[in-house]
Amino acid sequence: MNPDRNSEAGVPPSAVLAAISRSLDAGDKGAARRLAESLHPADAADLLERVSAAERERLVDILREPFDPDILVELDDTIVEHVVDRLGTEQAAEAVAAMATDDAVEVVEALDEDVQQAVLDGLPRIRRTRIREGLAWPEDSAGRLMQRNVVALRDDWNVGQAIDYLREADGLPEDFFDLFLVDRGHRPIGAIPLSRVLRTPRSASLTGIAHPDLPIIPADMDQEEVAFRFRQRDLISAPVVDGDGRLLGVITVDDVVDVIHEEHEEDIMALAGVGAEDNFFQAILETTRSRFIWLMIHLVAAIAASAVISLFAGTIQELVALAILMPIVATMGGTAGIQALTVAVRAIAVKELTPMNAMRAIRKELLVSGLNGLLFAILIGGVAWAWFASPALGGVIALAMAINLLTAGFTGSVLPVVLQRTGFDPAVASSALLTSITDVVGFYVFLGLAAALLL
Amino acid sequence: MNPDRNSEAGVPPSAVLAAISRSLDAGDKGAARRLAESLHPADAADLLERVSAAERERLVDILREPFDPDILVELDDTIVEHVVDRLGTEQAAEAVAAMATDDAVEVVEALDEDVQQAVLDGLPRIRRTRIREGLAWPEDSAGRLMQRNVVALRDDWNVGQAIDYLREADGLPEDFFDLFLVDRGHRPIGAIPLSRVLRTPRSASLTGIAHPDLPIIPADMDQEEVAFRFRQRDLISAPVVDGDGRLLGVITVDDVVDVIHEEHEEDIMALAGVGAEDNFFQAILETTRSRFIWLMIHLVAAIAASAVISLFAGTIQELVALAILMPIVATMGGTAGIQALTVAVRAIAVKELTPMNAMRAIRKELLVSGLNGLLFAILIGGVAWAWFASPALGGVIALAMAINLLTAGFTGSVLPVVLQRTGFDPAVASSALLTSITDVVGFYVFLGLAAALLL
Repeated sequence: MNPDRNSEAGVPPSAVLAAISRSLDAGDKGAARRLAESLHPADAADLLERVSAAERERLVDILREPFDPDILVELDDTIVEHVVDRLGTEQAAEAVAAMATDDAVEVVEALDEDVQQAVLDGLPRIRRTRIREGLAWPEDSAGRLMQRNVVALRDDWNVGQAIDYLREADGLPEDFFDLFLVDRGHRPIGAIPLSRVLRTPRSASLTGIAHPDLPIIPADMDQEEVAFRFRQRDLISAPVVDGDGRLLGVITVDDVVDVIHEEHEEDIMALAGVGAEDNFFQAILETTRSRFIWLMIHLVAAIAASAVISLFAGTIQELVALAILMPIVATMGGTAGIQALTVAVRAIAVKELTPMNAMRAIRKELLVSGLNGLLFAILIGGVAWAWFASPALGGVIALAMAINLLTAGFTGSVLPVVLQRTGFDPAVASSALLTSITDVVGFYVFLGLAAALLL
Repeated sequence: MNPDRNSEAGVPPSAVLAAISRSLDAGDKGAARRLAESLHPADAADLLERVSAAERERLVDILREPFDPDILVELDDTIVEHVVDRLGTEQAAEAVAAMATDDAVEVVEALDEDVQQAVLDGLPRIRRTRIREGLAWPEDSAGRLMQRNVVALRDDWNVGQAIDYLREADGLPEDFFDLFLVDRGHRPIGAIPLSRVLRTPRSASLTGIAHPDLPIIPADMDQEEVAFRFRQRDLISAPVVDGDGRLLGVITVDDVVDVIHEEHEEDIMALAGVGAEDNFFQAILETTRSRFIWLMIHLVAAIAASAVISLFAGTIQELVALAILMPIVATMGGTAGIQALTVAVRAIAVKELTPMNAMRAIRKELLVSGLNGLLFAILIGGVAWAWFASPALGGVIALAMAINLLTAGFTGSVLPVVLQRTGFDPAVASSALLTSITDVVGFYVFLGLAAALLL
């Protein structure tokens, strides 16, 4: 492979931006525009995301008239607003009018309410109605993801009739992957992959080659569940229906790939105690605020742990080695707990962990943390004994370590299951809750045992 | 929607397993088999993953002769070995022989070497060669993901010739989404989505409707890069080429969905200090070992932090409030650092954070952690002042908190960038390294300032 080709299809090299800047500095707007337009829309979007706000506005200015709608579609939600502001609602509406419904809904839902209104007002009436219908579905639902333009055929046609119809019909989607058969009530009753249509003689009936088990997505289904089904069944597209089972639209795998990506991001961010919205491109004040909330929760937990320590102030004064060693017990508990928690949270998210095998999962975590508890009890007991020349101190910290690692394994696996059953997202708040527990237990058990046994 | 339909397409209810068990207990193997076979292969695989080892063997026994190859394809890697063991190599080979190359490679690579050898020996020669060729590509490369069976057409054909060929040719893949045009050297020069073939008159030339910018994947490309391109360009399938640019096979989006999923899992597990292989279904001893290594790293870090505390043993003995408050500074630093780190690691993984904007990202983190540092300095300073009636102690902890949060923000954003540049996976080991730094700095700054200013 020649390396140019590689970089062409990958991330746009900063060289393109540098070249654009040079052209602008030299006053050659035409050259700058040609350079920017040579980028694939996805790469142009990446570039817009990555530059500073001032550079972004310059880029938007050279890319306008007309602004490629695909760039707007590919932009990160937090950047769409800025680009639309710079474009002006008129040009933004022009771009939105040229998009497929699902893309248009995605772009419009990222806008603030007043800008949203202005852009919608600039659209032709039918487009506006379609987008409003999309926005009427709950956030993160299948209804928001679906493309309304869908190829639905009568179930009494044959392959030849279908091909002739496709060649002549206007207003079909640009790309599609399955034909859907509908009954007289417009309810989907079968799907035919296009490769099957192409490989079948014209005289064959469509029903004869339709896929028997049709994956049907209700429009109000959560997008996480939609993603699970696509992944589970290797789907390329699936029909979306209303409450009466009537065909409303279609969801295609490219949108589902984005959903899978988003849902994973949310989980990983939540586990780290970062707001799900803490996007890399977000403004400083918003980032500060979203992190502040999580830090606040951790501060309250840390103060609770300190309150536990203060119960043993006298003990520590008598034996300062306790102050030196106590963070070890707490830290190791937190680490082991996060390990068990992360595995459980992921297993719940991908439906590997269900009520059916929850008991076995918890048993496994108890065994794993029991074994590691034993090993680390021996290790830290030896270290403490050697360090402070006190076998009794070694014994106390060993016992505290074993108890805290067992607590950590148990809490880490039970907490997400309990949160899930009570209707909470197990990824959110789990880790803060868990480390509070392992800190409090770690300090209490270690200092308590020391007070009882050593003094 | 009727609820039965939902559950049919979703996770198999534990009711199915219960019903199978009842049939087996009643000695009715036929009924058990009918129940198990009524499941979609993906759901049958889920069931096999979720049950205990003994139940799994019973299930395999009722599902054999013939064992549906699709179940093997859908099984988690850690479970494949067990199921193949129970099936026996002869029946496993039969199932593998019926799979597409990419699926066969995926199943075979999950087996231990001797079992792998035995299964391969049971295959027809051509299949064996194809699978060996697949396994010859590096792990996690495009070559391992690709399906060898690809629809490649001469670039001088028209649409009618293509359709006639597809109707008559033998040995085409079961499902495909694009036609690839190749030149005389069998190098891909264009791709045509099937919907475009169906919508174009028979007389049109194929080159006229081919997509101009063809995303070409070299067979040795890392699967993470492959996934990035699919997501970036909304691809459904892409041609894979050898070093000379000749068409070798095709990667389809369903395999890429699995890759995206795997790569995310690896990141999330690595950030939590769990081995990337710490799968929910893994055996207890392996899980214990993989977690042990990470806990060991954290133990060493925690002992280093304790060594820092021990430098100030005298100070703590004089002012026990320091022992009570010191974990707060360390914990808050760790939390803030993990926040910054997670955002940076994710931004690197999805290529939002590049050398081009690294400096701006670090500046942003410094501002965010500076702001939160200020807020939490005021908060904890007030708490400490009130708690121990000492404005000086409040001042010391406030200063230590601000310094540690700033350190955390800086380290959290710089560490992944540095690891990435030096060729390490930023997700792995980052979090252990980071919390060591925030612990050591937290304890040292707080106790050091206290020793200097309070006594």
